[in-house]
Amino acid sequence: MAKKTKGDFTIGIDLGGTKILAAVVAEDGSVIGSAKKRTQSEDGPDAVLKRIIKTSQEAVDAAGVTLQDITAIGMGAPGVIDMARGVVVSGTNMPGWVNVDVNKALRVWNNVPVWLSNDVRVATFGEQATGIGKGVKNFIAVFVGTGIGGGIVTNGQIYSGSRGSAGEIGHVVIMADGPYAVGGGVRGSVEALASRAAIERDLRMAMAAGRDTILPQLVPDINAKFTSSILAKAVDKGDALTIQVLQRAAYYLGLHAASLINALDPEMLIYGGGVFEALGEWMLAPVRSVARQYALNKTNLDQVRIVESKLGASAGIIGAGLMARYGSLTVPAPV
Amino acid sequence: MAKKTKGDFTIGIDLGGTKILAAVVAEDGSVIGSAKKRTQSEDGPDAVLKRIIKTSQEAVDAAGVTLQDITAIGMGAPGVIDMARGVVVSGTNMPGWVNVDVNKALRVWNNVPVWLSNDVRVATFGEQATGIGKGVKNFIAVFVGTGIGGGIVTNGQIYSGSRGSAGEIGHVVIMADGPYAVGGGVRGSVEALASRAAIERDLRMAMAAGRDTILPQLVPDINAKFTSSILAKAVDKGDALTIQVLQRAAYYLGLHAASLINALDPEMLIYGGGVFEALGEWMLAPVRSVARQYALNKTNLDQVRIVESKLGASAGIIGAGLMARYGSLTVPAPV
Repeated sequence: MAKKTKGDFTIGIDLGGTKILAAVVAEDGSVIGSAKKRTQSEDGPDAVLKRIIKTSQEAVDAAGVTLQDITAIGMGAPGVIDMARGVVVSGTNMPGWVNVDVNKALRVWNNVPVWLSNDVRVATFGEQATGIGKGVKNFIAVFVGTGIGGGIVTNGQIYSGSRGSAGEIGHVVIMADGPYAVGGGVRGSVEALASRAAIERDLRMAMAAGRDTILPQLVPDINAKFTSSILAKAVDKGDALTIQVLQRAAYYLGLHAASLINALDPEMLIYGGGVFEALGEWMLAPVRSVARQYALNKTNLDQVRIVESKLGASAGIIGAGLMARYGSLTVPAPV
Repeated sequence: MAKKTKGDFTIGIDLGGTKILAAVVAEDGSVIGSAKKRTQSEDGPDAVLKRIIKTSQEAVDAAGVTLQDITAIGMGAPGVIDMARGVVVSGTNMPGWVNVDVNKALRVWNNVPVWLSNDVRVATFGEQATGIGKGVKNFIAVFVGTGIGGGIVTNGQIYSGSRGSAGEIGHVVIMADGPYAVGGGVRGSVEALASRAAIERDLRMAMAAGRDTILPQLVPDINAKFTSSILAKAVDKGDALTIQVLQRAAYYLGLHAASLINALDPEMLIYGGGVFEALGEWMLAPVRSVARQYALNKTNLDQVRIVESKLGASAGIIGAGLMARYGSLTVPAPV
């Protein structure tokens, strides 16, 4: 591609428990070049920070630009973040990530401003800045992967609550006395019932009880993770057990959607994350129908759009890149 | 009391399904005089509007002022409200209240500006303007009476959502496949499990199943409503069944509180309504303890204050009176 003048690009990084995504992001939110590595979080923060830098450098190379063309770096990370200092206070499912100074580590590599925030909030911002949530004043993004996270946008702003931890909508109880969440979390919460981890738990319990399924034929070995794409394959092949468990998860997500609509009256609910990237409308249709059944005000519900994420797996890198460009999680007013 | 100069007072009206409260409210939110009547909503909107005016006139008389001293009238009513036109679009548990023009009816009586909003939102505003929520930027008020309603304050403003119906936090599902709500509403919602109506339903079901209780001795006849004060009497007398059912309701309210804290990260949860006016800290202590157990982030939870309403049954009239004074549900910035 044609070389632009210095100062046109930012780097957006999406740090996840299983993979690191990095991209060079242009002013309009388009991805110029990207790279991906496994996180291997078991190696600890120092090794992961090195891999983050390596992935970012590969994204810069893939974009055909140099570090001189990068004006700022943004990163979304799972857990509690001190945005002002650029520090991961406490990483979720990231061994050793306690008070990890991301700002410092990245500045040693490339001394430009670094912006750090919570991963799902950054992905929500991506959808708001350039995705399906663009121009929508009140919406909620629900990301269903191994866990369930989300972001709440009220009056055009990401709502962060009184201590910066608003949006933990995966930890809303929808079944009193329900199952415990896989890997901690809140008992009976939507995460404990409808996340990929919960779906996998339910499938394995059914298998242990002797239920028939083709899932063992779809994984390299029976202990391998039932990823969202494996679940989608099983659905494609008409596997009754997988279909049943996923439809049940969609039902729980529908109850959760109705609760969010009743309490917060959004214009739009956006569904993303691995489960929706793999299953899309097949999963979303029952969510929509259950939400409609349980919403208080049917007239209102007809006006709530329940839609898939537009940016998909790129919401995080694009959100991070634009957060770095704007220097905040606020979409600037049009000029 | 000494007569003030013209223009110092507003009237605040709290229209409920069972009673009408009206008060003359001073600039600082204090109640100068008040009156109360049964709603008798079965008589239809015209009769109720007449009773609202009669109650208001009695409040004016009780305050020792005249209609010339009233600059504006505010009213909170249950249901969907068109605030701009001062119309009850659809009243909750109010037969015939469809597109009832409150503004017009009150102006015929006393031609001053009329402000109408949703009852629980007005009560939340009362707590924000002059109650326990004063100066608190992010809080949620939960009113537990025959139903459960609430108000959400974010960044110092009552949050009304995209179509003005935010805050229906009673209609959040906390038990998938749970019981239906008494009088409609959402199945498995906290209202269906922990409202006074749900508590009465559970008590009557237990009685029908032969459980022992002193409740029949506390009501004039067995078909009379188990009011919150009768429930409090039964608790005082150590009635095991009532205590058990109320503690269970408190447990559900605690799950609901944890969900609100996890999703919205407020500084404070305020509990009001008949059930808390009658039972107070006895009911609130288990809510607090369950909320703590189910909240995601214990450190955060230690900072969330879970408290009783300060204004109690007066939150609605004071909120309505101040809404009329300010001409909105916004507390003016200090001068």
